[in-house]
Amino acid sequence: MKKLINNPDHVVSEMLKGIEKAHPELVYHEGYEVISRRCKKANKVGLVSGGGSGHEPAHAGYVGTGMLDAAVSGNVFASPSPDRIVKGIEEADSGAGVLLIIKNYSGDIMNFEMSKDIAEMQGIKVDCVVVKDDVAVEDSTYSAGRRGIAGTVFVHKIAGAKAEAGGTLAEVKAVAEKTIQNIRSMGMAMSPCILPGVGKPGFTLGEDEVEIGMGIHGEPGVFHTTVKSASEFAQILVDKILADYDYENSEVAVMMNGLGSTPLMELYIMYGEVEAILKSKNIRVYRSFVGNFMTALEMSGCSVSLLKLDEELKQLLDSEANTPGLKVR
Amino acid sequence: MKKLINNPDHVVSEMLKGIEKAHPELVYHEGYEVISRRCKKANKVGLVSGGGSGHEPAHAGYVGTGMLDAAVSGNVFASPSPDRIVKGIEEADSGAGVLLIIKNYSGDIMNFEMSKDIAEMQGIKVDCVVVKDDVAVEDSTYSAGRRGIAGTVFVHKIAGAKAEAGGTLAEVKAVAEKTIQNIRSMGMAMSPCILPGVGKPGFTLGEDEVEIGMGIHGEPGVFHTTVKSASEFAQILVDKILADYDYENSEVAVMMNGLGSTPLMELYIMYGEVEAILKSKNIRVYRSFVGNFMTALEMSGCSVSLLKLDEELKQLLDSEANTPGLKVR
Repeated sequence: MKKLINNPDHVVSEMLKGIEKAHPELVYHEGYEVISRRCKKANKVGLVSGGGSGHEPAHAGYVGTGMLDAAVSGNVFASPSPDRIVKGIEEADSGAGVLLIIKNYSGDIMNFEMSKDIAEMQGIKVDCVVVKDDVAVEDSTYSAGRRGIAGTVFVHKIAGAKAEAGGTLAEVKAVAEKTIQNIRSMGMAMSPCILPGVGKPGFTLGEDEVEIGMGIHGEPGVFHTTVKSASEFAQILVDKILADYDYENSEVAVMMNGLGSTPLMELYIMYGEVEAILKSKNIRVYRSFVGNFMTALEMSGCSVSLLKLDEELKQLLDSEANTPGLKVR
Repeated sequence: MKKLINNPDHVVSEMLKGIEKAHPELVYHEGYEVISRRCKKANKVGLVSGGGSGHEPAHAGYVGTGMLDAAVSGNVFASPSPDRIVKGIEEADSGAGVLLIIKNYSGDIMNFEMSKDIAEMQGIKVDCVVVKDDVAVEDSTYSAGRRGIAGTVFVHKIAGAKAEAGGTLAEVKAVAEKTIQNIRSMGMAMSPCILPGVGKPGFTLGEDEVEIGMGIHGEPGVFHTTVKSASEFAQILVDKILADYDYENSEVAVMMNGLGSTPLMELYIMYGEVEAILKSKNIRVYRSFVGNFMTALEMSGCSVSLLKLDEELKQLLDSEANTPGLKVR
């Protein structure tokens, strides 16, 4: 195993220390594995997300102006415990309530909901939304119902913009829910990732084998196939999304997300293919995002996310965001 | 070989088409493999860079406000031909002359200098600077003298800011030269990359083997070693840089660059180690950049670049940049 780490048991805390050092506008709360903004904005709805580590820049990289107020990290691919999440809620609270943005994994649901109850007993108003954008499978290894994957970043962006603009907790939750309803994602993996401390891949794929619909923790997808062209893969991913939700004749935001080790060259080639398919369906791309937004360590592969837009969502998508992982201006 | 491509012969043109589609503020000049800004600013010094493809987001990803005006792509790891570079110069020219920012590889030097002569014969005022920031080796497979690597992105940023602020060609060149003199970089590789169409790695490293000082095309470095801790690797890289140039008691910008498949988690861990070493030498980090800025397809590994700052460089580093690969605000 070749990894640029010191000790597999300390990768999360050392990463978060590095994030704090590299981005002085963020604060690391050691022991809680929480990253929050250094300057709180009084009476703004606080946004908290998080989950297992290994998906960087998600979620600590999305803390900052126009997106999250705090991100809570678990160990690699493991849900953060309630004491950590409660700390994240406390840090995000500035008097107007806190919205939790949870990816749909059983551990995250359980721990975030328990934390919501604890924080409410402390007098903080807390609500939550659950992202389940992955159309690959209906239930999975770690989820009842669909998994939450890269489309979650759209929820951070849109809800973050609404909160920054002074929306109430109910308003921020409502726009987050609308966003979630309008997102569908579909991914594929070409090679596995290796967990620090484990030293061997979590799964194997043959020399010519690709898994369509694999999850961001290596959970099984829909089917194995052989290596195909970018054009064919784009068709498979987009077809699955379009079969699930009606995007025709609409405007969308597209996220062409890399899982960690797919060269940007390949993501742009895939983006070109995706855009061409959408165009043929009279779906207009309003804004696109190409890069590594929600990874699985050094897994190779990609996911496509579509967000159907209306005027409100367009305006919120375009408003300023200034975080390590996403900058919009 | 698992790659998200259609045809190995078309990866560059399909990538550039994808970039144009994803970033409507950029234009792709097909046949020339040039990406330029859609809106030219009259009478601004034009900045052109480029080189072999496979280093994305370098260089097409750095075209935009506050950085380059045009980027010229060769085939993967191959210098662009003069007809392409001349087209880039023409696109970048808006009446105040054009500065070429060349990484020090023999093919690039030859082709960019030839293109400078051709463009000058067409009446465009052209000058150039050569980046040779890699302290690993004095001569290399494709270079006489030191190689140009990730530190080049600092030159794009600083010279771009000066040009955007209305600097003359001589002024932009002078600040680019000062920047180049103040940058040193040092890298390491943990696994090879695979060229599209070749289908096998360009070099091999044993299961526990790492190459210190390897180039971004897999050129030989300084020595092989075994896998060590992030702390030890950071010490090796930073020591080599500090032995070459006096950064003590100064302020610096740091770029912690991933070569393609190194997880962001590991880059932040490395950044934390680098920052601690610098602190111990009384070197203050003014601004840092952690991510994939100059890659080698899916090579794993990283490089560290330091840029010594004065007041002028700090101000130019902080001014606005809005490109797909780097946003500063």
